[in-house]
Amino acid sequence: MHDVHREIASWLQPLGMMLQIDAAGNLHALYPAAGPAAPRLLIGSHLDTVPNAGAFDGILGVVLVIALLKGLNGRRLPYAIEIVGFCDEEGVRFATPFLGSRALVGRLDDDLLDRQDWQGISVRKAIQDFGSNPERIGDVVLGDDVCAYLEFHIEQGPVLESLALPLGVVDAVAGQSRLEFIFKGRANHAGTTPMNMRFDALAGAAEWITAVERAARSCRGLVATVGTVQAKPGAVNVIAGEARLSLDVRHPGDDIRTRAVEDLIRDAQAIARIRGLTVGWNEHMNQRAVQMDPDLITQIEEAIRKSGCKPHRMASGAGHDAMILAEKIPSGIVFLRTPGGISHDPAESVLVDDVAMAIECGSHLLDQFPVSSAFQKRTRRA
Amino acid sequence: MHDVHREIASWLQPLGMMLQIDAAGNLHALYPAAGPAAPRLLIGSHLDTVPNAGAFDGILGVVLVIALLKGLNGRRLPYAIEIVGFCDEEGVRFATPFLGSRALVGRLDDDLLDRQDWQGISVRKAIQDFGSNPERIGDVVLGDDVCAYLEFHIEQGPVLESLALPLGVVDAVAGQSRLEFIFKGRANHAGTTPMNMRFDALAGAAEWITAVERAARSCRGLVATVGTVQAKPGAVNVIAGEARLSLDVRHPGDDIRTRAVEDLIRDAQAIARIRGLTVGWNEHMNQRAVQMDPDLITQIEEAIRKSGCKPHRMASGAGHDAMILAEKIPSGIVFLRTPGGISHDPAESVLVDDVAMAIECGSHLLDQFPVSSAFQKRTRRA
Repeated sequence: MHDVHREIASWLQPLGMMLQIDAAGNLHALYPAAGPAAPRLLIGSHLDTVPNAGAFDGILGVVLVIALLKGLNGRRLPYAIEIVGFCDEEGVRFATPFLGSRALVGRLDDDLLDRQDWQGISVRKAIQDFGSNPERIGDVVLGDDVCAYLEFHIEQGPVLESLALPLGVVDAVAGQSRLEFIFKGRANHAGTTPMNMRFDALAGAAEWITAVERAARSCRGLVATVGTVQAKPGAVNVIAGEARLSLDVRHPGDDIRTRAVEDLIRDAQAIARIRGLTVGWNEHMNQRAVQMDPDLITQIEEAIRKSGCKPHRMASGAGHDAMILAEKIPSGIVFLRTPGGISHDPAESVLVDDVAMAIECGSHLLDQFPVSSAFQKRTRRA
Repeated sequence: MHDVHREIASWLQPLGMMLQIDAAGNLHALYPAAGPAAPRLLIGSHLDTVPNAGAFDGILGVVLVIALLKGLNGRRLPYAIEIVGFCDEEGVRFATPFLGSRALVGRLDDDLLDRQDWQGISVRKAIQDFGSNPERIGDVVLGDDVCAYLEFHIEQGPVLESLALPLGVVDAVAGQSRLEFIFKGRANHAGTTPMNMRFDALAGAAEWITAVERAARSCRGLVATVGTVQAKPGAVNVIAGEARLSLDVRHPGDDIRTRAVEDLIRDAQAIARIRGLTVGWNEHMNQRAVQMDPDLITQIEEAIRKSGCKPHRMASGAGHDAMILAEKIPSGIVFLRTPGGISHDPAESVLVDDVAMAIECGSHLLDQFPVSSAFQKRTRRA
C-alpha cells in the first residue's frame, strides 16, 4: 500500500497536488475550488485488491480521476474535487470488506478495529504498523462540506459487453443473502440398497440445486448460486448420508430477494419431505440493497449521452465503496465494460477506448455537476 | 488375524478339528468324510473386516459352519467338509479386495503380490511378515477333489428385512461400473453474472445427478449412485467452473449395466451441450456379473423351504469371495437378513433366530448335497 501511495504521489505531482493518508490508511488528494469555502466532491475507488488479481479492479477508478483532473488544464471549478483511494475494500486480510470507506461514515468502530487476521493481528494494530493512528479514526469522518461521491469501476460482469456498451450507470447495489443448507438422509451401501429404499442426501440436494437455478432464471434481475457442495461420507460406493451446500442470492429489490430465499427454503423442505430427508439451514448474511442517488444517476446518464454513448442503467451484483458512502452522501457509480466479464484474475482487462470514454463522461459530469442541489440534499439528510 | 485364528482354533478343538494356515494366510480346517478318497465341500467366508466395522460381516459365515458341524454330532458324510476363513476380502490395506480367495483360484499373481500398501509394504512382504510363505502361493490353488463352495453372509442391505424374510439365496453377484465425470464451465462472479450468461458446472452436474437417479429408478434391479462431488473453485460467491462426480452402477445383467452407463454418458453429454459446458469421464472399474451355480441355488431354495421359510432369490450388490471361487467351482451364497440394512458400522447386527434358521438350512443342505452332480460339473468345467 505504501508503494501504491508513492506511485500515485508521483502522478499527482505534475498537477501540483499533494496526497494525505488518513488515520484509517485511505489516500486523499485535494484539487481546490475556484473560490473559498466551496463544497467538495469526492471521486475515487479502492487501491487494494485480491490475491492473483487483475490490474484494474479498484485502482482504475483512482488513476482515472488523475487523468480527468489533468484534462482540466488547471481550470478551477466552483467546487473542490477530492481524490480518494480507499484501503481494504476487498476484505481479504480481515474477512471484512470496506474497512477504508466505513471509516469515512463513522462505522470503523471498536468492534471492527478489534477484528483479527489469521495471525491474530487486529485491524487496530495493522493500522499502527502501517504508520497511521487508529486513535484518530474519528477525524476521518466526512465533513459537512462534502456534497457527493462518484466512483468509476469496472463492471466485473458480462452485461455491458453483451450489450456492446462501453459504460453503464449503477442504479442500485444488490442486496445479498448467504445461507448454508444441510440435507440429511442415511448413508448406505451403493450396491446393496435398492433405489426405492434410499435416503440419498446428495440426490435431494441435486434436485434442489436445479430448483435454485430455475427460480432465479424465472425472476428478472435475480441471481442465485450454489457455489459449494460437500457430500458425506463422500465415497464412490456409499450413498451420501449428508450434503452441505451454500446459497448466494442477490437482487436490487430486498422484497424480491427475501421472498426468493423463503421460496427456496420451502423448495428444500418440500424436496426433503418427499424423499424422507431432513433439511436445515443457517443464514450467514442478509444485507439490504443500496440505492444510488437518483439525481446523480440522471446526471451520469446525461454525461454518458454527451460522450456519444447510449446510457444503460443496471444493478451492481458486487459491493462497492459507494454503497457505504451512500449512507451519508449522494453517491453514484459509473461502470466500465469488462471484456469477458473476467475479474479477480490476471486476465482482467479494460479497453483503452472505453477508458477514454469514461474520462470524457467524467469531464461532462464535472461541467454539469449541480453541486448546490447535491449539497442541499445532503444538508436535508443530515 | 493371528488372534482370530487362535480364537477359532479353540472353537474347533471340541470337534477334534485342527486348523491350517495356507501360504496366502487363509484358514482351513477339515471335517473328514465317512470314507477315503471322498470329495471336499468348502464352506466359509472371510475373517477380515473394515475399520469401524460391525461384528458379523464375514466372520459370521465362518463361526456358523462350526455350529453346523457341531450339529452333526460326529456323524460323517459321504464327502469331507473344509471350513475356509479367507484373509483380506475387504481390500482395506492394499486397495484390492479378495486377496485370500484369489489365491485359491490361482489369481494371486506376481502383479498382485507386488502391490504395496500406503507404507510401501508389498502383499508379498506382508505375507512373509505374517509368517506365511509367498513362494508357496501356488500350493494354495484348489485341488481336483474340491467339488463346490458355499458361503453364509449377512445381506448388508435392506431387502430381506423389507420382505420380512430371514434368509435369501443369491442368484448372481451384480457387475459393477465405476466412473468419474468432470463437467467444465466457467467460474465467474456470483453477483455480477446474470443467470442467462452462466456456464455453471455444478448446476449441470446437479441436473445429471437427478437424471442418474431417474434412470436407475426406471430399471428393475439397477442401482446407480453418485457418492462424491466436488465443486471448483468452491466458494460461496463464485459460480463453479468445474464439478467432479463419481458414478457407481450395478446390475446382475452385464448388458443392462453397460447400456445404463452408456445412456448416462449420453445424458451427461446432452446436459453439457445444452448448457455450453463440456463433460469428460474416466472408467475406473468395469467388472462383469458372476452367476451363482443354478443347481446349488435350487438346493439352497429347497433347504430354506425345509427350514420353514419362503425362499427368495436375489442379486448381491456387493462382492463376495464366492464370486471369485465361482470361476473354478460351483458356488452358492445364503444371505441372512440384516436389520436396518446396516453394515460396515458398529450398529451392524443379526437376529439370533435368523442365525438358528441359517444353521438349520445349512444342515438340510448337507443332507441334500448332491456331491456327485456338483463334482461331475466341476470335472466337465476343468
